[in-house]
Parts: sequence; structure tokens; C-alpha cells
Amino acid sequence: MLYLGIDLGGTNIKVGLVTAGGEVVRTVSAPTDLPRSAEEVCGDMVRLCREVLDDAGETAAAVGVGCPGTVDGESGRVVYSNNLRWVDFPLRDYLSARLELPVTIGNDANVAAYGEAAAGCARGAESAVILTLGTGVGGGVILGGRLLTGFTGAASELGHMVTADGGEPCTCGRKGCFETCASATALIRMTREAMAEHPESLLHTAALLDGGVSGRTAFDAAELGDETAGAVVRRYEHGLAVGIANIINIFFPEVVGLSGGVANQGEKLLVPLRAEVEPMVFGHAYAKKKTRLVGCTLGYRAGIIGGAMLARQALAED
Amino acid sequence: MLYLGIDLGGTNIKVGLVTAGGEVVRTVSAPTDLPRSAEEVCGDMVRLCREVLDDAGETAAAVGVGCPGTVDGESGRVVYSNNLRWVDFPLRDYLSARLELPVTIGNDANVAAYGEAAAGCARGAESAVILTLGTGVGGGVILGGRLLTGFTGAASELGHMVTADGGEPCTCGRKGCFETCASATALIRMTREAMAEHPESLLHTAALLDGGVSGRTAFDAAELGDETAGAVVRRYEHGLAVGIANIINIFFPEVVGLSGGVANQGEKLLVPLRAEVEPMVFGHAYAKKKTRLVGCTLGYRAGIIGGAMLARQALAED
Repeated sequence: MLYLGIDLGGTNIKVGLVTAGGEVVRTVSAPTDLPRSAEEVCGDMVRLCREVLDDAGETAAAVGVGCPGTVDGESGRVVYSNNLRWVDFPLRDYLSARLELPVTIGNDANVAAYGEAAAGCARGAESAVILTLGTGVGGGVILGGRLLTGFTGAASELGHMVTADGGEPCTCGRKGCFETCASATALIRMTREAMAEHPESLLHTAALLDGGVSGRTAFDAAELGDETAGAVVRRYEHGLAVGIANIINIFFPEVVGLSGGVANQGEKLLVPLRAEVEPMVFGHAYAKKKTRLVGCTLGYRAGIIGGAMLARQALAED
Repeated sequence: MLYLGIDLGGTNIKVGLVTAGGEVVRTVSAPTDLPRSAEEVCGDMVRLCREVLDDAGETAAAVGVGCPGTVDGESGRVVYSNNLRWVDFPLRDYLSARLELPVTIGNDANVAAYGEAAAGCARGAESAVILTLGTGVGGGVILGGRLLTGFTGAASELGHMVTADGGEPCTCGRKGCFETCASATALIRMTREAMAEHPESLLHTAALLDGGVSGRTAFDAAELGDETAGAVVRRYEHGLAVGIANIINIFFPEVVGLSGGVANQGEKLLVPLRAEVEPMVFGHAYAKKKTRLVGCTLGYRAGIIGGAMLARQALAED
């Protein structure tokens, strides 16, 4: 049995044909080409699904879509998507009518997290929290094989948990949200601040070599022994550790998985992070089990795999 | 069918005989009388269960116990209880062997929260988060009728979510935990600080009239128009609002219920709190559904009712 996973982004629409075990058989993609109407974007999604099935000479049992914004999986509607400029669009029924297949929809970060839980870094775990360290901090919570979506479909906004009340302003209007401390954007902000204060720092050289300041700059300069860069990395890791420890105290999941650009630092990030998180966990001295803190493994394919796995789950429960 | 609920506290052991609908038929209690061995305390729990059944001339189908500390419901063991000084005690099997009934155990705050979800302020809701504003901030998370306990049994430590990193030291070792901003202890600390700074404030009079500073003092003096007291109340409400908004962004539950001494302020606390929380909720401008923020209704009986309801659920699933 094969499943279609659709990763609907602001830049590209990616469609994949995926096995029940989470292996990607074939993918196709096309630019989202915004601004366009929801109907035009959906037309392309349908076309890409037919194309990937025709190319593979296969049929699919169901479709799962990850979509940016607030998505109500139960009603199958995109409540609001700032990226796509959709308000209350019946995405599930629109696609289902045209593809003549069952369709399941979810928020894109949630769906990618579901992919990691079902077929990636948290495969086999009874619970997992996935954090994507990118422009913001997105993610998803999977408990007993199910996405936590709350009664509005909008739960798991872990990036908008305030961890430093009164701190940096967040795009959401609050101050000190986890994502103002732990996103790639936050790391870049901290790097720029340190560069302005320390003209002698190797951060400047690292940025020049890399064609500009990025989430890598501080890690690169710290590896060369630059103290200013080391302090930036430690400050960033502290903010990330505070939020991860909160998540463990709240959910005590079996796995916390990190994805996104910053997570590409791998063990260079994870080793000090584990050391900082552990003593922050409530009752850590007596706990017999520990949450595993790991890097995600599916990369840019997490969205399509997650969509396909969600479609499989929905079909199994029907 | 009747169920036994046991609320095992550091001061008293309360046992109740409860209907399947959550009505309390009869209760008995005895002092916990610490320090005593786990076996002695359990002996009293067994005796009280037999007593309440004999008095009522009834039998019970199952038993549920709320116990302070880290409780692993799956293995039926109390991993660690600071209050009781128990380490890795097999409470479930010990009681079950003596009572010859199925026993389910959970953390006391979680079990009381379960009672509110099953038979109190969140009855009928698909999800609820209950916060107890007392010495600390305890609570429980109920999703789809089930307690969130994580894979260690220690989840839902909502009071130990850092909301103000670098803030007041917490008993857990971190700084700026939600409970350092939103517990009754925090409110008393803020009240004392304001009293020291403002000798002219009516906070002093309110404390005298009430026999000392308590969680009521600031509310009482604020009602008399005292500005210093008003500022304490607003500061406390802000800290509480930040944590509640985090909880909504994380879980988007149908209901958030508040219990404990401070919650006795009722609508005097809830009305300004709802106004402060609402704009903090991610996507509030587009949300079609809102989390209801309410007071809990079961009072000191939440623990025994929760224990009984948990026993009923465990039996139904067996």
C-alpha cells in the first residue's frame, strides 16, 4: 500500500509517494508561485499527485497534507494561513473531491514532526516532541502515536511558550517567547550583537568566509577558539536548554528531536545541550528513565513522509 | 458500582466511597502521622478502606490512590516521595494484595486534576489542564479522558516550566519557574516585599485583620482601593497569565481550571486574568474556539473523587 504526502510550503509544493514503512518511492515538486488563489494552488497539488502516480505506475490509498498556518484537522479546513493568505479554506474536501481519495490535513510543522515520530528519529518511541530551529521554533508533539492538536487544531505552538518574560519582542506580540531565544533567527541576532561589541572577534572572519552571518557563524568561530563566539554559543544553548527542559517537565516524552539548520551542528550542539538540560529536569536525581535528546533524521523529506504516515494512520482508524 | 478513592497526604489519609458518576457516598480519614514506615501508612489505608465499606454496608469494584511525589502508574510504584520519604515503593501491589481489589495509583496533583476533569469543572470537556495554586503550582493535564504522565510517570510538572529565566530561585534548583511567579507562596512573597517598601499601605492593616500575611492580603487591601496592593495583584496576575497562556499555546485545552487558596478569589481573579490571557494566545485574532478559564468545583474532595474516577477508568479499560 502506498500513500501520497504533500508538503505545501510558501515557496514550493512537494509531493511524494511513500510506502507504509515510510520509504520515499518518488517525488515531484513545483513552485507555489504566490500570490495565487487557493484554487490555483490546489490545482497544482492535484496535478503533481497525478504526475507522481503516473510516473511510478502506481495507485495510492490516501493523501496527507502539511500546510502552513492554523489547520483544523477535524473539520479539514485551513483556519488561517498568513503565508498562503488563506482564511477558512476547506482544503481537505477540495482535494478529496478531485483526487477521489481520503485526505488528511495538518499544520506543516506538526506533520513533519509526525514523520520523524513515525519513521525518523523517534520511530518506535511511545512519545516524542520535535523542535525545528529555523526562522522561528516550530514543532509537534506526538503522544501514543497521535499528534497533539488541541480542541482548536492549534496546539503545540511550543515556540510561543514564554521562557524569559519581559525579554526580546516576538513576532507574536509577546516578549521572551522560546523562539526569541532558540530559533536560528535568535542565534543570528546574538551573533550580530556580539560582532558589534567585539570588532576583534573571529566572528567577523567566519561571517566573511561564509558569505554573511548565519546560524553557523558562531559555531565556526567558537571552534577556532574565539571566546566571544564561545559566549554566543553558550548563551544560545542556555536559551535552548531552558525550553527543552520545560518541554521535558511538561510532557516527559521518550524522545526530543531537533531539526532545522542549527541542528545540523549535530553532536557539537547536542553534547553540551544534554549536559545543560539534564540537571534542569524535575526529579532528575531519582528518575530511572531519561528523555533521549537527538537530531532528526528525515531532513527536508520529513514533511512528505509525515503527510503520508498521517494518511496511513487516518485510514487505519477509519 | 462504587469505587474507593484514597487521597494520601503528608498530614492526612482521606478515603472516600464514590459512585460511578463522581458522587461521594461516605468518607473517613486519619492522620498520616509521619514519620512512619510505608507498611504502617499502608496498613492504615487498608483499615480506612474496610471501615468506609463496612459503615456503608457496600462493596467497591476498584481503588484509586493519589500519592505525593513521582509515581509510575504503569509499574504501580512510588518512585520517590519527599513528603513520605518513600523510595521505589510498590504501593499498587501492596494495597491490591491486602484489599483484594484492583488498585490504580497516580501523583496526587494529577489525580485531583483527573477528578476535576471527570466530575468537576471540566466534566464533559475533551481536554483540560488543572492548576493548583498553593505552596507550589501543581496540576494535571487530561487529554481525551486520559492523564498525561509521560513515559516516566512524571510529566505535567507545569509549575516547573520556566517562564522568567533568571528570575526568583525555585525549590527545584532552577530560576524563574512558573511557581515562583504564580503560587500562593509567590503572592505572599510579593505582598511582603510591597509591605516593606510601603509602610503606609493598607496591606499592613489587611494582614493584621487576617492574623498574618496570606494569599488573601493583597486582594483584600486592593479591594479597599490601596494602590500598592493593586500593583501586587496585577504583578501576580501577570505572572499567572504568562504561564496560563503558555499552557494554552502548548495544549490548547478546552478548559483551564484553577484550584487552591488563591483560586477562592473566584471571578475577582478570573475576570482580569481572562482579559490578560486572551491577547497572549497565539493566533487569538483568528481562533474560532477559546479555552474556557474557570474555577475548580470539587474543593478538598478532588483527590478522593479523582482516585475513584481513575479506578473506574482503569477497570473499564482492563
